[in-house]
Amino acid sequence: MTRINKAACIGGGVIGGGWIARFLLAGIDVDVFDPHPEAIRIVGEVLDNAEKAYVMLTGAPLPPRGKLTFRETLQQAVANADWIQESVPERLDLKRKVLTEIDAAARPDGLIGSSTSGLLPTDLQRDMRYPERLFVAHPYNPVYLLPLVEIVGGEKTSKATIAAAMERLPPIGMKGVHIAKEIEAFVGDRLLEALWREALWLIKDDICTVETLDDVIRYSFGLRWAQMGLFQTYRIAGGEAGMRHFLAQFGPALQWNWTKLMDVVDLDDALVEKIGQQSDEQADGLSIRELERIRDENLVGILQTLKGSHGGKGWGAGKLLKEFEQDLWASAGGEKKLADVAHPLRLIETKVSPAWVDYNGHMTEHRYLQVFGDTSDALLRLIGVDFAYVERGHSYYTVETHIRHLGEAKLGQAIHSTCQLLSADEKRLHVFHTIYDTATGDAIATAEHMLLHVDAKAGKAASALEEVLSKIRPIAEAHAKLPMPDGVGRHVGQKR
Amino acid sequence: MTRINKAACIGGGVIGGGWIARFLLAGIDVDVFDPHPEAIRIVGEVLDNAEKAYVMLTGAPLPPRGKLTFRETLQQAVANADWIQESVPERLDLKRKVLTEIDAAARPDGLIGSSTSGLLPTDLQRDMRYPERLFVAHPYNPVYLLPLVEIVGGEKTSKATIAAAMERLPPIGMKGVHIAKEIEAFVGDRLLEALWREALWLIKDDICTVETLDDVIRYSFGLRWAQMGLFQTYRIAGGEAGMRHFLAQFGPALQWNWTKLMDVVDLDDALVEKIGQQSDEQADGLSIRELERIRDENLVGILQTLKGSHGGKGWGAGKLLKEFEQDLWASAGGEKKLADVAHPLRLIETKVSPAWVDYNGHMTEHRYLQVFGDTSDALLRLIGVDFAYVERGHSYYTVETHIRHLGEAKLGQAIHSTCQLLSADEKRLHVFHTIYDTATGDAIATAEHMLLHVDAKAGKAASALEEVLSKIRPIAEAHAKLPMPDGVGRHVGQKR
Repeated sequence: MTRINKAACIGGGVIGGGWIARFLLAGIDVDVFDPHPEAIRIVGEVLDNAEKAYVMLTGAPLPPRGKLTFRETLQQAVANADWIQESVPERLDLKRKVLTEIDAAARPDGLIGSSTSGLLPTDLQRDMRYPERLFVAHPYNPVYLLPLVEIVGGEKTSKATIAAAMERLPPIGMKGVHIAKEIEAFVGDRLLEALWREALWLIKDDICTVETLDDVIRYSFGLRWAQMGLFQTYRIAGGEAGMRHFLAQFGPALQWNWTKLMDVVDLDDALVEKIGQQSDEQADGLSIRELERIRDENLVGILQTLKGSHGGKGWGAGKLLKEFEQDLWASAGGEKKLADVAHPLRLIETKVSPAWVDYNGHMTEHRYLQVFGDTSDALLRLIGVDFAYVERGHSYYTVETHIRHLGEAKLGQAIHSTCQLLSADEKRLHVFHTIYDTATGDAIATAEHMLLHVDAKAGKAASALEEVLSKIRPIAEAHAKLPMPDGVGRHVGQKR
Repeated sequence: MTRINKAACIGGGVIGGGWIARFLLAGIDVDVFDPHPEAIRIVGEVLDNAEKAYVMLTGAPLPPRGKLTFRETLQQAVANADWIQESVPERLDLKRKVLTEIDAAARPDGLIGSSTSGLLPTDLQRDMRYPERLFVAHPYNPVYLLPLVEIVGGEKTSKATIAAAMERLPPIGMKGVHIAKEIEAFVGDRLLEALWREALWLIKDDICTVETLDDVIRYSFGLRWAQMGLFQTYRIAGGEAGMRHFLAQFGPALQWNWTKLMDVVDLDDALVEKIGQQSDEQADGLSIRELERIRDENLVGILQTLKGSHGGKGWGAGKLLKEFEQDLWASAGGEKKLADVAHPLRLIETKVSPAWVDYNGHMTEHRYLQVFGDTSDALLRLIGVDFAYVERGHSYYTVETHIRHLGEAKLGQAIHSTCQLLSADEKRLHVFHTIYDTATGDAIATAEHMLLHVDAKAGKAASALEEVLSKIRPIAEAHAKLPMPDGVGRHVGQKR
């Protein structure tokens, strides 16, 4: 993957802050310029939320967080960046001025993305000296969780710029979608705007309340659209007869005089107040912060679900997450961890995700085993049992497990796991994992596992290949010198 | 909950078939009338899909499937039903005629719902003798998974009918949303139609392809809308300043001349063909059946994620699922299972869900513990450790677990679990669970657990209450006579 080395963010509001979080969490240093007196506080809040969500999103090893620096001037901020993201308020004159200043101060080969949600890149790049490196990179809120970036070039934008922008997004967990022709509002906001207008009419005319309208969306097509879009969903609805048949049926309906969309609704004080009141009722006492947390937890859960979809290959935003994690694992490398085998290996760092807890906020029983399983997977990657090895028909299966619960993990709690290799031979790995409360260092749970190397095609135990055994040996030798952990060899109900 | 005793479905296409599946899987007998020569095959296919998805959706005990009967005449089908659902093609004259026939043949107090996606209930009920019991019950495809039903009354519909319709939907896993005023296309299809028109323009004008458009949706606002709708999402975007502030910012944008919505796109042959070709490319070789399966698996996973959201209370469609499952458990009762304590208790019946498997299609390690944990929960419910008991501050915690893997569970495989109570005292339950391949009867995995009764507030072990102990005793006494299962008391790595 092609990576951004250094980023600059001009504007640190909700959108700019989201970009800053994406860069920092991907290990990229970010220089920020924002004259707003509260910029540091606002960026800090977005970053806080982002970090909470991100750590729950993936158990893969995140790189060391990038360095965040607030600069006094725009010129200082952009000087050394190879990706500069502009997220200032949505006014053509202001954006054009800021982008022209960025252009003058940045390296000529620095990429310049604008977060505009509707302005044309051709208009934005008009006064630039190197307009070929300007493009629209339009993200969606919350930027630190929603992967989409609409990439749109103007008349003077070069093809190389578009290609460079597209390939730099996956390493920060994002998905670039190139919009072929520039139009105001691009694709996403066009669709949203159309639906939004109709929604406002429905509220204004008292057809329903904002809560009813939201329920209509989230109990029906919202669930469809999280994973397939509009056309693929309708393709299925067409059945075996196919998309053309479906369209032929749908066509006539377009002539019906259903929507109010020919008129623009007047969003006057009365309508604003009506929506405001209905929205207050809908919130049912939940603060913005609480709603934000619920939204982020749900997004994390949905993304993780889609990661496991399509027979484990991942689907849509979940496929992107899977590829992102593979990249994180590859980038993390095993060398550093294997350098210190004199102690149990510290393998997984995570936080207790909302999808993992029961109604008391305690981590559910089987999620402990999930963390232990992730720990085994991390060990296997370290000894060379990676995707390619498994593809060749070799793998380790867990045949036996013993778990002790010594404490409780709670929602949002930082936990980590270690692995001590108790013994190993050609076919077997006998391991002992411990989950710790990272804040206190207390052990919360332990797991003793026996893993068996198998020939997956034959479905039988078989010796591991030498390339793997050679990596196991130094760990086994070093760990043989460690004291036997408390609890090894216990059976259920044994007296202490 | 108020339940439907007997349902009739007039029309068994994709939508009618979805209704039939909802009724049958909730244990309701359904009489069907559909003159289409292939009606039996089409209903069978929908029912197949529904059953696959439903069993993965919930591990709660489903009632015995209702009886499905195809009738020769409409009159026979509706004669004894207390909910009649009409799902014939979308033409006013046809629907009005069919509904009037239903009205004449049905019991005067039978509820009559129409699946129309756009026609006005006032127009539909015009010729009926008992028009007060006619309402629109508009579902979304796939009806067996998406919970939404828009409930709309006409001028002559009684309030009692609306109330009766609304309260009969949760027991079949659905969510009624009452639309206050009748308008063509109600709320959901209004919103969809607005967005659909804009989407067609974007394709026609070559701004993007259907794949790009779908990606824009499913990598961004589709993920938001699965859990919160339009207004609640924007409420958060407004931040602490609130909804009114957000609207005040958004307002002016409505005046921009962005959308094409003033014009109706001509869905001519060229546009149909263009969309058809792009859709073929997007499908990337996946058949409709495969796409359908992926869609259903994703919906199941998203619904399960939302069930665990909001600190385990459930959110949106997941909260509905949680309540549905609680009802299933309550309806199933424990009496039948407790009547036969001479054998290990058969507690969980489920299928291996797509979210549970790795890329090889094998059930992931921690999902075994999930099924074992569900088995423990089912046992606890049987002995009176229900929500009310836990609310009073008493609970059982698992302190120790030993798992043996004897075989493999694969995607879609039917599995069930049993529980043998090895010993019990005031504070402890020592249990042995087994997961079986339901088809072959082979044991796939076993788990030995020690559960400890706790005073949750004090955070200490404490005796269970007599109401629970009195239910444990007869099971413990009966199970004491069973042979000790193979594998009890094993430690990891012990020789066989």
